[in-house]
Amino acid sequence: MELFGTAGIRGHVAERVTPELALAVGRAVAAEIRERHDGNDGDEGAENGGPGPDPEVVLARDGRVTGPAIAAAMESGLASGGVSVLRAGRLPTPGLAYASQGRYGVMLTASHNPPSDNGIKLFRDGVEFDRELERAVENRVDGEEAPAEWDAWTTTERGDTLKSYLDAVETYARGFGEVDGRDDQDALDGLRIAVDCGNGMAGPATPTVLRELGASVVTLNGNVDGHFPGRGSKPTPESLRDLRAFVADANEGVTEPGRSGSDGDAEGFAFGIGHDGDADRLVLVDADGDVVHEDTVLAILAERYVCRSDADEPVVVTTPNASGRIDERVRAAGGRVERVRLGALHEGIASVEAADDTVAFAAEPWKHVHVPFGGWIDGVCSAAVLARLVAADGLDALREPVTERPYRKVSVDCPDDRKAAAMADLTERLPEAFPDATVNTDHGVRLEFADASWTLVRPSGTEPYVRVYAESDDVDELVEQVEAVVTSVVEAAAQRSH
Amino acid sequence: MELFGTAGIRGHVAERVTPELALAVGRAVAAEIRERHDGNDGDEGAENGGPGPDPEVVLARDGRVTGPAIAAAMESGLASGGVSVLRAGRLPTPGLAYASQGRYGVMLTASHNPPSDNGIKLFRDGVEFDRELERAVENRVDGEEAPAEWDAWTTTERGDTLKSYLDAVETYARGFGEVDGRDDQDALDGLRIAVDCGNGMAGPATPTVLRELGASVVTLNGNVDGHFPGRGSKPTPESLRDLRAFVADANEGVTEPGRSGSDGDAEGFAFGIGHDGDADRLVLVDADGDVVHEDTVLAILAERYVCRSDADEPVVVTTPNASGRIDERVRAAGGRVERVRLGALHEGIASVEAADDTVAFAAEPWKHVHVPFGGWIDGVCSAAVLARLVAADGLDALREPVTERPYRKVSVDCPDDRKAAAMADLTERLPEAFPDATVNTDHGVRLEFADASWTLVRPSGTEPYVRVYAESDDVDELVEQVEAVVTSVVEAAAQRSH
Amino acid sequence: MELFGTAGIRGHVAERVTPELALAVGRAVAAEIRERHDGNDGDEGAENGGPGPDPEVVLARDGRVTGPAIAAAMESGLASGGVSVLRAGRLPTPGLAYASQGRYGVMLTASHNPPSDNGIKLFRDGVEFDRELERAVENRVDGEEAPAEWDAWTTTERGDTLKSYLDAVETYARGFGEVDGRDDQDALDGLRIAVDCGNGMAGPATPTVLRELGASVVTLNGNVDGHFPGRGSKPTPESLRDLRAFVADANEGVTEPGRSGSDGDAEGFAFGIGHDGDADRLVLVDADGDVVHEDTVLAILAERYVCRSDADEPVVVTTPNASGRIDERVRAAGGRVERVRLGALHEGIASVEAADDTVAFAAEPWKHVHVPFGGWIDGVCSAAVLARLVAADGLDALREPVTERPYRKVSVDCPDDRKAAAMADLTERLPEAFPDATVNTDHGVRLEFADASWTLVRPSGTEPYVRVYAESDDVDELVEQVEAVVTSVVEAAAQRSH
Amino acid sequence: MELFGTAGIRGHVAERVTPELALAVGRAVAAEIRERHDGNDGDEGAENGGPGPDPEVVLARDGRVTGPAIAAAMESGLASGGVSVLRAGRLPTPGLAYASQGRYGVMLTASHNPPSDNGIKLFRDGVEFDRELERAVENRVDGEEAPAEWDAWTTTERGDTLKSYLDAVETYARGFGEVDGRDDQDALDGLRIAVDCGNGMAGPATPTVLRELGASVVTLNGNVDGHFPGRGSKPTPESLRDLRAFVADANEGVTEPGRSGSDGDAEGFAFGIGHDGDADRLVLVDADGDVVHEDTVLAILAERYVCRSDADEPVVVTTPNASGRIDERVRAAGGRVERVRLGALHEGIASVEAADDTVAFAAEPWKHVHVPFGGWIDGVCSAAVLARLVAADGLDALREPVTERPYRKVSVDCPDDRKAAAMADLTERLPEAFPDATVNTDHGVRLEFADASWTLVRPSGTEPYVRVYAESDDVDELVEQVEAVVTSVVEAAAQRSH
Repeated sequence: MELFGTAGIRGHVAERVTPELALAVGRAVAAEIRERHDGNDGDEGAENGGPGPDPEVVLARDGRVTGPAIAAAMESGLASGGVSVLRAGRLPTPGLAYASQGRYGVMLTASHNPPSDNGIKLFRDGVEFDRELERAVENRVDGEEAPAEWDAWTTTERGDTLKSYLDAVETYARGFGEVDGRDDQDALDGLRIAVDCGNGMAGPATPTVLRELGASVVTLNGNVDGHFPGRGSKPTPESLRDLRAFVADANEGVTEPGRSGSDGDAEGFAFGIGHDGDADRLVLVDADGDVVHEDTVLAILAERYVCRSDADEPVVVTTPNASGRIDERVRAAGGRVERVRLGALHEGIASVEAADDTVAFAAEPWKHVHVPFGGWIDGVCSAAVLARLVAADGLDALREPVTERPYRKVSVDCPDDRKAAAMADLTERLPEAFPDATVNTDHGVRLEFADASWTLVRPSGTEPYVRVYAESDDVDELVEQVEAVVTSVVEAAAQRSH
Repeated sequence: MELFGTAGIRGHVAERVTPELALAVGRAVAAEIRERHDGNDGDEGAENGGPGPDPEVVLARDGRVTGPAIAAAMESGLASGGVSVLRAGRLPTPGLAYASQGRYGVMLTASHNPPSDNGIKLFRDGVEFDRELERAVENRVDGEEAPAEWDAWTTTERGDTLKSYLDAVETYARGFGEVDGRDDQDALDGLRIAVDCGNGMAGPATPTVLRELGASVVTLNGNVDGHFPGRGSKPTPESLRDLRAFVADANEGVTEPGRSGSDGDAEGFAFGIGHDGDADRLVLVDADGDVVHEDTVLAILAERYVCRSDADEPVVVTTPNASGRIDERVRAAGGRVERVRLGALHEGIASVEAADDTVAFAAEPWKHVHVPFGGWIDGVCSAAVLARLVAADGLDALREPVTERPYRKVSVDCPDDRKAAAMADLTERLPEAFPDATVNTDHGVRLEFADASWTLVRPSGTEPYVRVYAESDDVDELVEQVEAVVTSVVEAAAQRSH
Repeated sequence: MELFGTAGIRGHVAERVTPELALAVGRAVAAEIRERHDGNDGDEGAENGGPGPDPEVVLARDGRVTGPAIAAAMESGLASGGVSVLRAGRLPTPGLAYASQGRYGVMLTASHNPPSDNGIKLFRDGVEFDRELERAVENRVDGEEAPAEWDAWTTTERGDTLKSYLDAVETYARGFGEVDGRDDQDALDGLRIAVDCGNGMAGPATPTVLRELGASVVTLNGNVDGHFPGRGSKPTPESLRDLRAFVADANEGVTEPGRSGSDGDAEGFAFGIGHDGDADRLVLVDADGDVVHEDTVLAILAERYVCRSDADEPVVVTTPNASGRIDERVRAAGGRVERVRLGALHEGIASVEAADDTVAFAAEPWKHVHVPFGGWIDGVCSAAVLARLVAADGLDALREPVTERPYRKVSVDCPDDRKAAAMADLTERLPEAFPDATVNTDHGVRLEFADASWTLVRPSGTEPYVRVYAESDDVDELVEQVEAVVTSVVEAAAQRSH
Repeated sequence: MELFGTAGIRGHVAERVTPELALAVGRAVAAEIRERHDGNDGDEGAENGGPGPDPEVVLARDGRVTGPAIAAAMESGLASGGVSVLRAGRLPTPGLAYASQGRYGVMLTASHNPPSDNGIKLFRDGVEFDRELERAVENRVDGEEAPAEWDAWTTTERGDTLKSYLDAVETYARGFGEVDGRDDQDALDGLRIAVDCGNGMAGPATPTVLRELGASVVTLNGNVDGHFPGRGSKPTPESLRDLRAFVADANEGVTEPGRSGSDGDAEGFAFGIGHDGDADRLVLVDADGDVVHEDTVLAILAERYVCRSDADEPVVVTTPNASGRIDERVRAAGGRVERVRLGALHEGIASVEAADDTVAFAAEPWKHVHVPFGGWIDGVCSAAVLARLVAADGLDALREPVTERPYRKVSVDCPDDRKAAAMADLTERLPEAFPDATVNTDHGVRLEFADASWTLVRPSGTEPYVRVYAESDDVDELVEQVEAVVTSVVEAAAQRSH
């Protein structure tokens, strides 16, 4: 059974992510861990002088109503599978990832899905399971993995790991340098920030970290509530309208929004932050209440991370649909960009590092992996780092060097059974049609032009389309040209198949 | 040592409400409980056929940083004093009062004081300790109460009582009648409400109850944080400016704020709610972002409670500084008002009920005792009840019958040692000066006039002033007249003393 | 699927009582509870003015290694089934039964089975589920009961109910009268008792209660250990040999074993107690280290309970295989005995009480229901009550009036398919063969004689035998006569079937 | 105030070790930790690149009734002093010491004192506080250390560290070599051991570890009960009489007590173990039910540890009153003995290691520091190691090489004010009187003779005596000679002072 999608296992709690499934997955994960740590892999055990450290799994959940019952089933599966479990209660997903370092981790979350859904994310040593591990789990679920011997069943412990995570984020963000010659301790002092936690797991995390860093934080929807009463749990310009209006209205007529003047307290807000249900995503809202484009946020962070890196040519890992503005800023800072398929940032990082290169930063839109901090997507860390950067330079100054070109995305009809043929043709036809472009065919066909325009053509993974992404000062013309090529190739493929 | 003020024991954690004090108070409370339940009080024990039920104390705290350490000391004092303790973690004060029914309760809170303060409130069976009990505790603290015999020391249990409290509030509020013929289950459906929890204990309480009642709630500062980063923890028009702006701006151009029209989701907010740090207080903000006068809120609730009462002449208990508009609405509904000194609502209720009268409601500004629900001040319950009333009738309709006359408060200099003489004179002089007024001298001198104007003259308990309160369509003239009498009397008292 | 045997659901954790089964049973129980309390059963709801109190289940386990994982699965089933759960940790079975009063209870225990087994016992209001409820659960398990709506899933609370149970047992046992004119508080003072807890759940229970009652207790195998290292968890003369030797050796040469003489501390032990893994059973060992016959213990308790009852003719409920010595003592005390099938004491109690008679006590060998205390089998309570009785009168004096006649049990071969015919014949033939006997055919054929001899003939429920039980001063002769009748009838049935 | 004796702080909970004292000590410890870790000590901080890791204290208690209340006060003192606390519940003292590695530890125990006492032991990184640290705490208690700033107060976490300790002991004991060629996993299989836990904290520890190592364990008084109902909590030949009789009687007529023969299960017990209330002490009982002399146990362990050491001349640290048989065995194995004052093993270890020598083992009677495992006294570890040694070689074989010479201890009257003069004289007079002896004057005057006889003369620390200890084949004659010298010196000192 194919359980894992690009976001782990996710679905309705009565149909897909049931307690029964959680029990089965827990059992499977436990069996897989035990096999890997019981010295079954031959010589390795002997070299190390014995099996590895006690396998342990930390198990957490987001704030969903169904979380406790799913977690109990998962605990039962893990414990009857013979691995010891630490129940860590409610955590942001990045908090669980942090706690999984040196062991395994199970996060029960459906991120921004509706409240009737839940999901399972699996971590090893801070990083999501790769496909090989996922398949091993799927196979064991299919095989209805039996319990371990009765005397290997474990008793679960309970503990709270949130504070150590928040402390670590705070310490990490403090490392983001001196700010205006102000005392480091009070670096954010006077900076007012509005955070919309969407009733998700950011509530007990982001406002606390920012306050510890010295900010003055006003929180929207900071109470954890699995019904997501305040807004949709996916942060979009529409779902964030309360936050955006709140920031914009508060800043009306304020000269330096969110900063304290000579005469006392700050007025307005320097910026706003919106999170999804499990706080791996972050959306940035500027002082006018507008959402800052996701690729611009990536470009800002990527440039900073490349500058801070000691490596000769630091690498930024991102996804094919991410804008060329990232490449511009990374190159300007002396680094290089590598693209990997959506949902596979951790595999991209591993691949780059396997080649002895240094990854400075990795991200897809809204999701940032702060590599020097850890190999997981971390929206709380993003909030802290961005706050430090804004406090030092101001958001306008951070955005200034990033060129935001017009962007479009269109879908061309293409039945699933013709996608392969069409893409094969396009790999030839598109470079022919745009002879000046640099071509990259790792994930579809991506063309980059001298003026930083770019286009990406790739088949949809789930729908009968070929997608065309383009970003250019004259985006309509570029899309028109590319679409024409795609359409003709798809039609040609159709005729051949008759 | 005089420990208790009008709001229990309260002060700085390094100077007044230290762990050492909490330990001593816990020991004293335990000894007092044991003496009362060990049948030492003579006949009572014999009548009951033996000692009472196992004495038990439920102990909770608000979200202050210093709460855990103070609570541990309190627990140690109680347990070494020989009473069994349930540690209920963090609760709103009314939630602890609810849980103390049938036993004793200790709430560690400094309400809206600064974060460096903490405090102790003691409850018996849902009601704050009266002066007699407070004095008994003070005496035992002074006497450095010794521990109980070693084998009477107890082991504390831990439990969560919040959910049962929230369920009880929800059930109680549902009792507030049919709403517009809509299905009771969804009575608040479509009503949008903004709640500013001020990072206090309302966060896990009020938004949940309102959501369970069917409202759509957006929360400000809903994350509990003992630093109170979002705003001052005392809810005032100034500290609530974010909430007020948020509501006002969201309602701009909206026809029916907070209500869903025929075409879908609601826009704007029907009203806003602000709480203090421990959620006993509630401030109501209207759809324009203005704070509704505290006495108007009292008048609305008082009228409703009198209407719902089965008693012949239901009594509303309030304090001397509360407005005559309350009396107007209570009388209109067929009830009567009794006034008691500030901070003594529970003693007032007890006194009325001792006379076989029925108290329908009791309140001082911002603080409401929903008597049919329980004998404690309860801001969460106020939020739920007000939401039900607004959903049924609209806030404008609720306010309409309440006449809001201009109000003023002035202070006349009067040294402490002349207050008694001055007040004695004023008890004669003021009625002479205003022969048409009805006179009440229970708590200072209060004059009420046929047009519902009133004035109250009373000595300040803490400062060298005599206070004059007045409410009248022509308040300046009334104050001028009263102030003249007061000034002359104080001067005369001064001359006599030379 | 037939899940329930005479001792609830029980079996190996990898084959029968798996986490998967616990999840399914929890879901089924939850659904059944919800249906019964949601007023679906017509008139009842209307009469009561609405649905009952919030359904709640208390969930506990014994000390088995597999308990935590099974409990987590059960919790998940209950919580996703929409009922709220209190996790009460480890408890003796009677402790869970006590805590289930006023609600439902789930006990995870396999009593004295091997450590690789586990089991599920279900309680409603202190009493085990009857067959009707068991069948309802079985049907729902077969139907793969779906989860409740997502927003009805619950969050489990944790609490410790052991102390309140121990306090209740202690208070109950104190009620067992004045002892030798000694002060009630110290009734057991000076009495030394040896308790072998068999590493089961009696460890944190029986020694504590006896010590609180004033006894001086030495404990064997008092540490809870799911491996049952100290002895087999089923208390038999053989498995209790350590306890028996310990008591016997300690009493060598001691005049008054376990009692303090005039000159100080007690020597030896007044008696010994052995429990099974979950402390519902109790075995009594006398001062010589011999096991007191189970029927003698029943007779002692039955007589006392009949004497203490206010009813005209108090009823003692027991099982068909229980000795006539019980009947003797019950009749002597003015009561009457009713017999019910094995494992159905609670149904017997219900049936007697439905007829407006009063049950004073109910028991099968080793298992005692102290009806005035509660409707469950309770070995801890038995220990406390017996200790009080022994302290008052001495064990010898308690045994003295009970006549212990020789007892035998034999099995006659009889294929399953002939059992019905054979028993039908025996119902006629046995009364013919023993015309002086009183005949009762409720549970097999039981003959009682004037000299208190008796015999019982019944088909085995699980093996191809007809069982003959007999107790008589001349038991060999009685068995010989009965066996002859049974053998001839079985043979006749065999010939007919050819 | 001098708080610390040789066993930490200990005394009656109403007079000495009150909650008030625990609060004060907690505050003092916290302040001391903060000062040491906040880089106040000058250069050290700079060298290390900053302050140390987050200071953290693990807090546990033994099973005393007063433990929870004392622990709550201690927690309050620590938390209001600004250090973070892990509440680890009930632990054996060595379990707390183990958990304190890498941080600080507070153990609340009065070891074998009466149940009305309690006490405080302080650890840093697995080792008890030395005098310097104790004095620092005393000074801060005297100075009534103020709380930390309010925003440095901490919130306590709870966790269970027992399992990791038991696992560590088990792993360590497994290291004690191959046993009779049997499979390591089952090294103790078939070995029956009786353990008397005295209702103390050994209950959840020693039987579990021995069972995990493969032994068959019967436990006496294994239920934790702060009333110590089973026996006095100090393990002496008298208080262990139940255990001794149990072992002796079980072994009557058994050929190989506690070992399984070819035909099945073991009979009797190989040996018995008795612990004190907090399981730092161990008393060994042989198969005849006799207590093995404490010095013989030391000699056995010391020899083994010296043999296992890699050092050139491994050192065994012990106290002046420990027998010469230890020296004999240590020398025979190629090591050397160093003696330190009573209660200062850890300071002795530190001193030896400061001189770059290797300590293989350290002990005083009943108290063993298994140095390769950790720097604390550990009775649970002793039980596991001794079980492994007995399983391999048998107890008789282990005892055989140890010569047990007759031992006596006498007290010579000597007023406190003459002790110094008398000891000064004795330092000269005793060597003169025994010219053949080797003299050591580090802790009193100790003379050792060629035939391994020895005597020690030292002033009592608490009573008006000079103590004479002697061990010799002709101990009466040796004592007579020494006593004569001591008496004459004391009398001479008396005459001089007149």
